[in-house]
Amino acid sequence: MKKKILFPQISGMIHGGDYNPDQWLDRPDILEEDLRLMKKAGVNCVSLGIFAWSAYEPAEGEFHFRWLTDIMDRLYDNGIYTVLATPSGARPAWLDAAYPEAMRVAENGLRDRHGLRHNHCMSSPAYREKVKIMDTRLAEAAGRHPGVILWHISNEFGGECYCPLCQNKFREYLKNRFHNNIEELNRQWWTSFWSHTYTDFSQIEPPFSNGERSVPGLLLEWRRFTTWNTTDFMQQEIDAVRRITPDIPVTTNLMELYEGLDYHEFSKPLDLVSWDSYPRYHNDQETLEQTAARTAFQHASIRGLKQEQPFLLMESTPSQVNWQPFNKLKRPGVHKLSCLQAVACGSDSVQYFQWRKGRGGAEQFHGAVMDHLGTDNTRTFREVAEVGRLLQKLAPVTGSPVKAQAAILYDCDNRWAIKDMQGLSQSGKQYEETLYLQYQSLMQLGVETDVISSLEDFSGYRLLAAPMLYLLHEGVAERLIKFVEQGGQLIATYLTGYVNEHTLCYLGGFPGGGLRRLFGLYSEEIDTLYPTDTNSARFADGDCSVIHDFAEILKLEGAEVLAEYTDDFYAGSPAAAKNKFGSGTAWYVGARLAQAGMEKIYRMALEDAGIEIPALPRHVEMHRRSDGKHNFVFYFNYGSQNAVIEHCLGTDLLTDRKINGTLVLPPMECAAVMQPLR
Amino acid sequence: MKKKILFPQISGMIHGGDYNPDQWLDRPDILEEDLRLMKKAGVNCVSLGIFAWSAYEPAEGEFHFRWLTDIMDRLYDNGIYTVLATPSGARPAWLDAAYPEAMRVAENGLRDRHGLRHNHCMSSPAYREKVKIMDTRLAEAAGRHPGVILWHISNEFGGECYCPLCQNKFREYLKNRFHNNIEELNRQWWTSFWSHTYTDFSQIEPPFSNGERSVPGLLLEWRRFTTWNTTDFMQQEIDAVRRITPDIPVTTNLMELYEGLDYHEFSKPLDLVSWDSYPRYHNDQETLEQTAARTAFQHASIRGLKQEQPFLLMESTPSQVNWQPFNKLKRPGVHKLSCLQAVACGSDSVQYFQWRKGRGGAEQFHGAVMDHLGTDNTRTFREVAEVGRLLQKLAPVTGSPVKAQAAILYDCDNRWAIKDMQGLSQSGKQYEETLYLQYQSLMQLGVETDVISSLEDFSGYRLLAAPMLYLLHEGVAERLIKFVEQGGQLIATYLTGYVNEHTLCYLGGFPGGGLRRLFGLYSEEIDTLYPTDTNSARFADGDCSVIHDFAEILKLEGAEVLAEYTDDFYAGSPAAAKNKFGSGTAWYVGARLAQAGMEKIYRMALEDAGIEIPALPRHVEMHRRSDGKHNFVFYFNYGSQNAVIEHCLGTDLLTDRKINGTLVLPPMECAAVMQPLR
Amino acid sequence: MKKKILFPQISGMIHGGDYNPDQWLDRPDILEEDLRLMKKAGVNCVSLGIFAWSAYEPAEGEFHFRWLTDIMDRLYDNGIYTVLATPSGARPAWLDAAYPEAMRVAENGLRDRHGLRHNHCMSSPAYREKVKIMDTRLAEAAGRHPGVILWHISNEFGGECYCPLCQNKFREYLKNRFHNNIEELNRQWWTSFWSHTYTDFSQIEPPFSNGERSVPGLLLEWRRFTTWNTTDFMQQEIDAVRRITPDIPVTTNLMELYEGLDYHEFSKPLDLVSWDSYPRYHNDQETLEQTAARTAFQHASIRGLKQEQPFLLMESTPSQVNWQPFNKLKRPGVHKLSCLQAVACGSDSVQYFQWRKGRGGAEQFHGAVMDHLGTDNTRTFREVAEVGRLLQKLAPVTGSPVKAQAAILYDCDNRWAIKDMQGLSQSGKQYEETLYLQYQSLMQLGVETDVISSLEDFSGYRLLAAPMLYLLHEGVAERLIKFVEQGGQLIATYLTGYVNEHTLCYLGGFPGGGLRRLFGLYSEEIDTLYPTDTNSARFADGDCSVIHDFAEILKLEGAEVLAEYTDDFYAGSPAAAKNKFGSGTAWYVGARLAQAGMEKIYRMALEDAGIEIPALPRHVEMHRRSDGKHNFVFYFNYGSQNAVIEHCLGTDLLTDRKINGTLVLPPMECAAVMQPLR
Repeated sequence: MKKKILFPQISGMIHGGDYNPDQWLDRPDILEEDLRLMKKAGVNCVSLGIFAWSAYEPAEGEFHFRWLTDIMDRLYDNGIYTVLATPSGARPAWLDAAYPEAMRVAENGLRDRHGLRHNHCMSSPAYREKVKIMDTRLAEAAGRHPGVILWHISNEFGGECYCPLCQNKFREYLKNRFHNNIEELNRQWWTSFWSHTYTDFSQIEPPFSNGERSVPGLLLEWRRFTTWNTTDFMQQEIDAVRRITPDIPVTTNLMELYEGLDYHEFSKPLDLVSWDSYPRYHNDQETLEQTAARTAFQHASIRGLKQEQPFLLMESTPSQVNWQPFNKLKRPGVHKLSCLQAVACGSDSVQYFQWRKGRGGAEQFHGAVMDHLGTDNTRTFREVAEVGRLLQKLAPVTGSPVKAQAAILYDCDNRWAIKDMQGLSQSGKQYEETLYLQYQSLMQLGVETDVISSLEDFSGYRLLAAPMLYLLHEGVAERLIKFVEQGGQLIATYLTGYVNEHTLCYLGGFPGGGLRRLFGLYSEEIDTLYPTDTNSARFADGDCSVIHDFAEILKLEGAEVLAEYTDDFYAGSPAAAKNKFGSGTAWYVGARLAQAGMEKIYRMALEDAGIEIPALPRHVEMHRRSDGKHNFVFYFNYGSQNAVIEHCLGTDLLTDRKINGTLVLPPMECAAVMQPLR
Repeated sequence: MKKKILFPQISGMIHGGDYNPDQWLDRPDILEEDLRLMKKAGVNCVSLGIFAWSAYEPAEGEFHFRWLTDIMDRLYDNGIYTVLATPSGARPAWLDAAYPEAMRVAENGLRDRHGLRHNHCMSSPAYREKVKIMDTRLAEAAGRHPGVILWHISNEFGGECYCPLCQNKFREYLKNRFHNNIEELNRQWWTSFWSHTYTDFSQIEPPFSNGERSVPGLLLEWRRFTTWNTTDFMQQEIDAVRRITPDIPVTTNLMELYEGLDYHEFSKPLDLVSWDSYPRYHNDQETLEQTAARTAFQHASIRGLKQEQPFLLMESTPSQVNWQPFNKLKRPGVHKLSCLQAVACGSDSVQYFQWRKGRGGAEQFHGAVMDHLGTDNTRTFREVAEVGRLLQKLAPVTGSPVKAQAAILYDCDNRWAIKDMQGLSQSGKQYEETLYLQYQSLMQLGVETDVISSLEDFSGYRLLAAPMLYLLHEGVAERLIKFVEQGGQLIATYLTGYVNEHTLCYLGGFPGGGLRRLFGLYSEEIDTLYPTDTNSARFADGDCSVIHDFAEILKLEGAEVLAEYTDDFYAGSPAAAKNKFGSGTAWYVGARLAQAGMEKIYRMALEDAGIEIPALPRHVEMHRRSDGKHNFVFYFNYGSQNAVIEHCLGTDLLTDRKINGTLVLPPMECAAVMQPLR
Repeated sequence: MKKKILFPQISGMIHGGDYNPDQWLDRPDILEEDLRLMKKAGVNCVSLGIFAWSAYEPAEGEFHFRWLTDIMDRLYDNGIYTVLATPSGARPAWLDAAYPEAMRVAENGLRDRHGLRHNHCMSSPAYREKVKIMDTRLAEAAGRHPGVILWHISNEFGGECYCPLCQNKFREYLKNRFHNNIEELNRQWWTSFWSHTYTDFSQIEPPFSNGERSVPGLLLEWRRFTTWNTTDFMQQEIDAVRRITPDIPVTTNLMELYEGLDYHEFSKPLDLVSWDSYPRYHNDQETLEQTAARTAFQHASIRGLKQEQPFLLMESTPSQVNWQPFNKLKRPGVHKLSCLQAVACGSDSVQYFQWRKGRGGAEQFHGAVMDHLGTDNTRTFREVAEVGRLLQKLAPVTGSPVKAQAAILYDCDNRWAIKDMQGLSQSGKQYEETLYLQYQSLMQLGVETDVISSLEDFSGYRLLAAPMLYLLHEGVAERLIKFVEQGGQLIATYLTGYVNEHTLCYLGGFPGGGLRRLFGLYSEEIDTLYPTDTNSARFADGDCSVIHDFAEILKLEGAEVLAEYTDDFYAGSPAAAKNKFGSGTAWYVGARLAQAGMEKIYRMALEDAGIEIPALPRHVEMHRRSDGKHNFVFYFNYGSQNAVIEHCLGTDLLTDRKINGTLVLPPMECAAVMQPLR
């Protein structure tokens, strides 16, 4: 664990957010007031120009960057740095009029019309050229400004395009992937089914809504292609700005478990990852504690893209958003907790969308630091300024990675394949919820957990959760076997090892690909439960855990029973089992257990692995960062009573208080305890 | 209040409805029977030719009006007048084949195919020309017939078209509206957001479903354009018939709070307004009394388009309809109550869709006076004939306006802007329900209430309800201030004065546009509640009223607290307040109170205003018309017990009984008491 | 009742299913294993080549049948016969690329893209030609193979096409149907409504989703055309194979009450009918007994297409399917019951989709005899083999028709007309559920019931249920009158005789077309109930039956009251009545009674008819086939206790046990008792 300082210019954490002065150029009084209030709020960095193409290039070939550099100058003079965005996220009206090919074609085959944002074709040479010119000109005009610390490439990349250009590119991609061998493609896609055999790559189309939706291999490859093509588009933007400013790092802002892109692939060209976090606080389905736990899982999933270095919280709202079904205000104190949770989970920034609400447009009612009201005498402003103050206290944490002993395997390919799987049930699959359930189970036990791809090196963890690992990438089964052999704890579930990376079913029993031997069992059948159905698993000690959605009927070949079904025709048969293998243990949970059941199994596995299970009070969330010399342990109390944390030694950075064994944390409070490592 | 007789030819109320003899030309026996039964039912007027284009012009340029004038002759000879329709509501098949541009383009960009009705392009020069010829030929052939008392222009105008012709017309409309100044449009639409700046009017498209849906100003202007273009279409039809028959008044039939057109604008060219009322009696969500109250609100909203003169109930069903999810029969007696309620609310007619059911077509199971059964020995016929008899009794009421002391402001622009507002919540907005809630609250207190646009002169009312007045037209804030200054009671709610007429947010605090001063407060934040959330407002006397959906956090600047929130982090802060201002009072209700809470506030305001609150028994609905010499007071008892109305003097026109202080009204009965004014 | 042996080659029942060796040509070991296991499972027949076009003709004009005949040889050598399919159900990619007109146009007017299956245009001359060549070549290559016992034409025909070719064909069809007389079409479609008169056949379009949806006659005729055109397509395929193999019978596989085709018309060219049965066992809305009863109804509806001969169960799943919302495993024993129920209801086969799961494609998780696991040591295999064994025991039943005394009239035209009827309610109509309710009511009384079209000869039955006979084909009213006159029991309901075969309403009272006289009553009004509304019918003996959805207000003209409404304004008026007419009785049930109420009425009618009501224990289902010399009586016990069936004599073919008066049937068991006829 080594410190990694992202921005040497800034001593400590970043505090700031999106700033759109281009909307207020006719109001210099407001721009002036912004500077005064940013300083009052402890803002040290803003993101500029995310949707400023029209302001930069109001007519083709006519560039205006002076307003930008003027503002950057004034910001810099006031100690405020700039994250500079390329404006490719939204196209000016003149551009679509001149280059209609920049507009996407939807999955129904109809071309979009001008409007909205985030909807350009990723293939269009004309648009790529326009973007390259823009990015180059922007980098030349402003990229070398001393205030610039980071490139923010485009905005929230996503979506698909079905235009002829993309279709052709998809075919080229497939040719490359299958070594120009159509027979190999037919084999892997099992196109003999329903007479779907292709005799030429030219016959292949993307999965139009009125086209081919019945070839799982095609569906999966189309999703992979979209990631590949979007990454390629982004790479070209990165190349353009790097040519001018080789030393400025680049990022783009990711989204909450976004399904459209494989972020593991997509984030490779980035120097650091950042994301936009908009938890649905105070919703009608969760407690605040649960919402927070879900958010911690999201942070971990982003952190996992670039392990061993901090990420940025690029966007978050200081109050409410405007796009959820119901947009509640954050209750007092929640802003502080949510911002510090991001830091606890590995972020070196707290940034907002946005500094000041625009008077019109789609987001005129999205929360911002500055409201239409125009004064700093608001609850929101005060809470933001308080966060600014606390972030300064947390400066020593900057650059420290998070320290985890366990990891959850989350593969985007696997997620897609499960989603497109035509069987069992659609609504019951819930892969994402299942990932989250593992995270929450481990979090409840006080175990800091990473979320990583199965293609990452996982040999360093002591416990690995691989829920619903339906699709196996090449080599993963072998690496899992080795992991257990060498002493690891592996926890897998129903739906493990069903298909290869082209979604072809393994022959010879699930879990396939060699894992049957590792787990010492196979699944003869899998039952799908209606939402109104339940079963339960009874453990040796009599504990029962309720079962929903899926239940595999297992045949043991060496594994030891952990729990048995209590009901239905398979009552008494194994619901979960473990298999000693080499120096480790492979655990197999054949049915969807409720959280308590999973916690029980994780507890057994942790004990097996010799990982300490800290005695955390209820409703307390804990995270740990470390710079190699100190641990920084964060505690959050979501309960309604004081929480008493024993065996706690160190200094709470937020209050400068020394903790001498017992930390008493009031409700809705947090602590950041710095502990020297011996 | 002055009498306004709409049709001097007819002594008293109109009773009749749509009649489609063109469907029965091969059955002279049935046409003969129709005449006999119309007279038996007290019918004195029918509407002809609404969908008769094919019968008038079966092939292009070949006109047949003789069958029409023959029928008009026979009707007239039997004392039955004609409302004559222009047939533009549905196009013959040959017309669409010859002029495809007459068919609309839907918001997905695809042109409709021939079929249905009410779906012509409003811009098509070809269709406008065809309609002009048709209307002219029809007016020449039948318009001067002595039986004709009214033109019925087309039918239930509505809908939008996205064809190239309409797109161009929209651009021309925008050029005109923004004085050919694209910068002004950009400013008002805040297009700097998301780089949406236009550099030429040619870049603007209507809000296609796969196009620009993120510019609120554009969305609103498109809706205004549709009203403007539809009105222009209708005006051309009016011009055509007026040229031939300058003395025949014109109307068109409107629909229940129809969202697609701003009826305030649209009804300006009309001599009188009429509408089609289809309450969902006996539904599974309301009591009969509530359905009736909702219907009274609808009548008031139509009446408000042409105050001080009666309107017509152009369509209603004598039994059931065929297009609701469940089409129940009207229970015995309900037909009488619903017809007389229309009269009580200001209608001078009771008209039906339709006289006789057609054997086929989309509405073969829509209720009619004459069923497929073919006999007058039916409950429906008897109830219709009874209404015919009672309408004759009500002849003295004819021409008398309704007498209201209060008004509700309902702006179509405001409705559209709220609907398109991207924030807070979609399902929770419920502007229409909120309008209705104000009406019902006032109705419960026995206050006759108009429903008018904020652009109307409202200075004559003593109480004004302005619920959710989110968008302020120019000048409205000033006129509201003056209204209160001069002694008026103004009741406003959360979401008042957020945006200007282009949906640009007011800076400096909501309610904006100058209203912050009037109400003596501002709203710092607005909280959105989930449907499962509630809060409540506690009044000074301890009464509590439940709160749903919205709660503003108010900061008072001079206003006096009326009620405080009981829960959540803003408990104890004001939920409602009032502000003495000049000689009047401005009331601000910061949260969505249930009806009881609103009634309580209205009661206070009425007392403040010195408006008498009559002591009506429960379940009784009251309305009042007046010809300047008499009041005509209508009572309806929706309860299951006799209702005793005290202090009632006059003559019940329905029974010819003198009322001498006490009126005892049996369940499901009504009275129409004529009271001479001193 | 005479035996009709479908396949003289096979002594006894068929056991087998779809087999796709074309997916495994590179795995001779698996093909070898298949043969071994088929024999072990008692398989004597497989269906080949259903989606093998790509394998037969990988490139245009290049044919490969050798792999097929090789496999047929080996199957035949092992005693396994072949059902040979024409492969037109799915088109190779090269074909769509070369002949885009083969791809359908959807109801939105957009042409489908290549993919999926069952989606060719039925009109395309190019595709018809390709199919003809393929079928001919296939028949030549393999049709005369001694193993072939049956042609399986295409697969699960269905769907509609709106392409220009189909549009033209529809117009030609209409010209023919209306004798080239557009006036007659206008009359029958009542196009004078909404000015929809056509002046030329060229103006008529199919009911595009953005076109004409308001002419019920057009909607109905479009559905009829689709049946006609699909039948014509199939006929061409039949002609092609018959030319080569005149002695091989033909079938196609039908689907569960499939709405898109009128199977009565569609099955005429077939030598025998077969269908694909996929009951939703163990769902969350029914008991197993109810699911079974629903399935029996489906069997009866297929059997009714070719009465007096057995049908085939062409597809069923040995375990679970993959396309339902939740795909549960068949519980142990259910497979046996479901297979033998098919036989009890008249099937001479039990066939599966499919023998072996494919590794990929849309159905890789659809149940099959052989799983990806690859072993016969599975519950599924054992249950299949057990069915194979039992089918051999049932050989004597082969060829025996089912013996029914009652019939339910089910007309596809009527179903379509009810569905498209614009009135009353959409969700409440539930014609299919109502059919099923009659079947279940009669089944509960132990009465074997056929399901036939009203165009079939029904004079041989003693009881006829005609629920919701809304549309009357020409001549049906007369035949119903004659049926009752001659002693039949006719049970009709609300919504009888509303429209003629063009959906034109009858004048003069419902039930129209002459039936008013038969039932001795007419319906003055029909009330539609909300789902939350109920009423009830009280019988003379005080029994009450709850009423949902619909209630007609009846006026009796000679009929005798059976039950009266208990509630609402029509309380006390007749809810059901009967009318002695000639030697029989016409029963009219004016409201939707719950099953208990219908059973009560059927019981009365059966007593009237002198049909014996057997004393069956609860939860027991009974069916009867007969070869003229023996009855074969099947009993199924769905209860959880032993069922004791008295007065049972004969031999249980499944166990070879003699039954001497009392049959004791354990839970989830069945018996097939052969009883010699005197």
